[in-house]
Amino acid sequence: MRVAVVGLGKAGLPLAAVIADSGIEVFGVDLDSRKCKMINSGKNPIPEEFGLDELIAKHGGKRLKATSDYRDAADCVAYIVIVPLILDELKNPDFRVLESAFREVGKILKKGDIVVLETTVPPGTTENLVKKWLEEESGLKLGEFYLAYSPERIMTGYSISRLREFPKVIGGVDESSGKKAYELYLKFIPNLHLVSNARTAEFIKVIEGCYRDVNIALANELFKIANELGVDFYEARDKANHEYCHIHLPSTGVGGHCIPVYPWFLIKEMEKREKFGYVKLLKVAREINDEMLNYWAEKIVLECLKVNKPLNKVRICIKGITFRKGVKELYHSRNLALARLLIEKGLDVRVYDEMFTPEEVEELGLKWGDPEEADVVFDCFELKIFTKSG
Amino acid sequence: MRVAVVGLGKAGLPLAAVIADSGIEVFGVDLDSRKCKMINSGKNPIPEEFGLDELIAKHGGKRLKATSDYRDAADCVAYIVIVPLILDELKNPDFRVLESAFREVGKILKKGDIVVLETTVPPGTTENLVKKWLEEESGLKLGEFYLAYSPERIMTGYSISRLREFPKVIGGVDESSGKKAYELYLKFIPNLHLVSNARTAEFIKVIEGCYRDVNIALANELFKIANELGVDFYEARDKANHEYCHIHLPSTGVGGHCIPVYPWFLIKEMEKREKFGYVKLLKVAREINDEMLNYWAEKIVLECLKVNKPLNKVRICIKGITFRKGVKELYHSRNLALARLLIEKGLDVRVYDEMFTPEEVEELGLKWGDPEEADVVFDCFELKIFTKSG
Repeated sequence: MRVAVVGLGKAGLPLAAVIADSGIEVFGVDLDSRKCKMINSGKNPIPEEFGLDELIAKHGGKRLKATSDYRDAADCVAYIVIVPLILDELKNPDFRVLESAFREVGKILKKGDIVVLETTVPPGTTENLVKKWLEEESGLKLGEFYLAYSPERIMTGYSISRLREFPKVIGGVDESSGKKAYELYLKFIPNLHLVSNARTAEFIKVIEGCYRDVNIALANELFKIANELGVDFYEARDKANHEYCHIHLPSTGVGGHCIPVYPWFLIKEMEKREKFGYVKLLKVAREINDEMLNYWAEKIVLECLKVNKPLNKVRICIKGITFRKGVKELYHSRNLALARLLIEKGLDVRVYDEMFTPEEVEELGLKWGDPEEADVVFDCFELKIFTKSG
Repeated sequence: MRVAVVGLGKAGLPLAAVIADSGIEVFGVDLDSRKCKMINSGKNPIPEEFGLDELIAKHGGKRLKATSDYRDAADCVAYIVIVPLILDELKNPDFRVLESAFREVGKILKKGDIVVLETTVPPGTTENLVKKWLEEESGLKLGEFYLAYSPERIMTGYSISRLREFPKVIGGVDESSGKKAYELYLKFIPNLHLVSNARTAEFIKVIEGCYRDVNIALANELFKIANELGVDFYEARDKANHEYCHIHLPSTGVGGHCIPVYPWFLIKEMEKREKFGYVKLLKVAREINDEMLNYWAEKIVLECLKVNKPLNKVRICIKGITFRKGVKELYHSRNLALARLLIEKGLDVRVYDEMFTPEEVEELGLKWGDPEEADVVFDCFELKIFTKSG
């Protein structure tokens, strides 16, 4: 039995490795041929992923073959697609990468094959768009092939253990697709749950992200109120939380490819249907999180006023620009946006991040700076402002 | 040692009983003299409170004496106040009951006494208002008496076990007050945590309620979206929830004295300070929950259209009017508000609730009706609409 995994990114590669480790021969398809070469020579391109080094060393180029050519995967019986879905400038989903991947799969699709999408998508995507793309390219009709959805639930750094321990859901666009895909996934996912249909599985993944986004917005809002009232938010949170109360941590906002993206799937779909009243909370949560930069910018400027220098001469260091500590990823990073916002205001801003070299920082169009040499340092992960005394 | 508990309601009486059961002599003060008589004869006025019958039977009239006269409690060393705080029509806290109770306590306050507030209040209430009321009435200054805050964390039905097992916080308006109050409470609260100050303790309780309100609003919003998308919300919720995801249950909104009240404490305080942007999420969550009746009203009307009768002749039964199933309490009940909303629309609405007699329903200005005889029944707790076929 041969399985193809299309997309060998942070979600796809750990999955491909886990499938290979279960004894199944895997063809990993990724357009990045350098990455394919690395994998085939047993080297792990995502070193921060705990446990992945061993799996790639063991299976890379052997049971897990990486390729940039879909035709190499032509005699697989199952195609798992896990490529990025981003938002366009108007916050609508940009399906181009997804469409292109499925049209390629469609070209090599054979009767009886199973196709499973893992990328987080707006509910309805698999049964509407994916089905159409596959049918158009393959000339087959659903029923001649099987189509299902199973959302990745990984977290960079913990993906292997997530795949092996965390509950995973799967749903088909029809009953036999659900059953077939469930049977396939059981071979490598131990904690697997079949749900009513693909749309339900899609919805499950999106609402998890919405829960996080809304609760981070709540934490940010309560953090601002606590400061206004002169209460230590962290002490209050620590004592407020218990079995039934899960107040999250405040932040500079929410970045990355996941949480700030998923609420828009529901917001845009409901707006299309003129159900504006159904997404009020999701929308305001997005606003609160995205506007946290203004809150921090004001705090930083107020701190700069304490330095005995003209405001535009105060050297500010923004420490930490990735969207999350320890993950070298800048997509929708609010920390990076905060640095740019302060620069736009005409302030002297330097940037420091332990994951970036000074050269890499300059390539982003920013000035690198040592926190030790700044007058005011804002630590984006600790949410703390340090001012040089004197 | 004698301790007074002012307010023998659903929160005060279980506390008074637990204190008495720890071996301390308790004077319970409540203006309802009938209730005091019941308690003194060993009868429990809150039968739905699990375990309270035994405690009242054991201590009522003996170690726990109920009285309507504050003077009977004049030689207590500690005064715990736990009387209602409601909102006025403009959603501002109405402190009148609280003020009156503290002014009475102030009149009998002696040097060295400890006063503790347990009612959920806007952060700052204890150090600002309560201190002032006590000082004005007693002629004493803080330091001559001790003042602290420890929020009740009961839940009707489970109050005794909550007091004995659940973590409880306490904070003083100054350091010695915190210490003194903590030592006192340790005598009857095993899982007790001293926090920085009274304001922090007040904030802790309020944000717990805010977490609940916002998450119920999120559940309501996601429920509406799920219905729109043709997804079973309950199936999705069941599979979405795990260790890090706690999506709540949808409802007709949020009623009772607690959750729909507390967010307003923060909203109104921030609005007073012109920090409108700090309470956007809390405010929209309140709106979503309070507007759920319109959603359900529309669903019910759409269901009525299926009945072969003129719309105003379709008999509707609203089943369940209390704010929570099994608790005979109508304060801010959205189920009651839903019944009234449908009546206002000119529909033929009857009401049924297993906790109310037909006479009690009529006293509310509503018509009682048997669900069996209605064309359309809406179960407010199950969120299900039943239509008589034919």
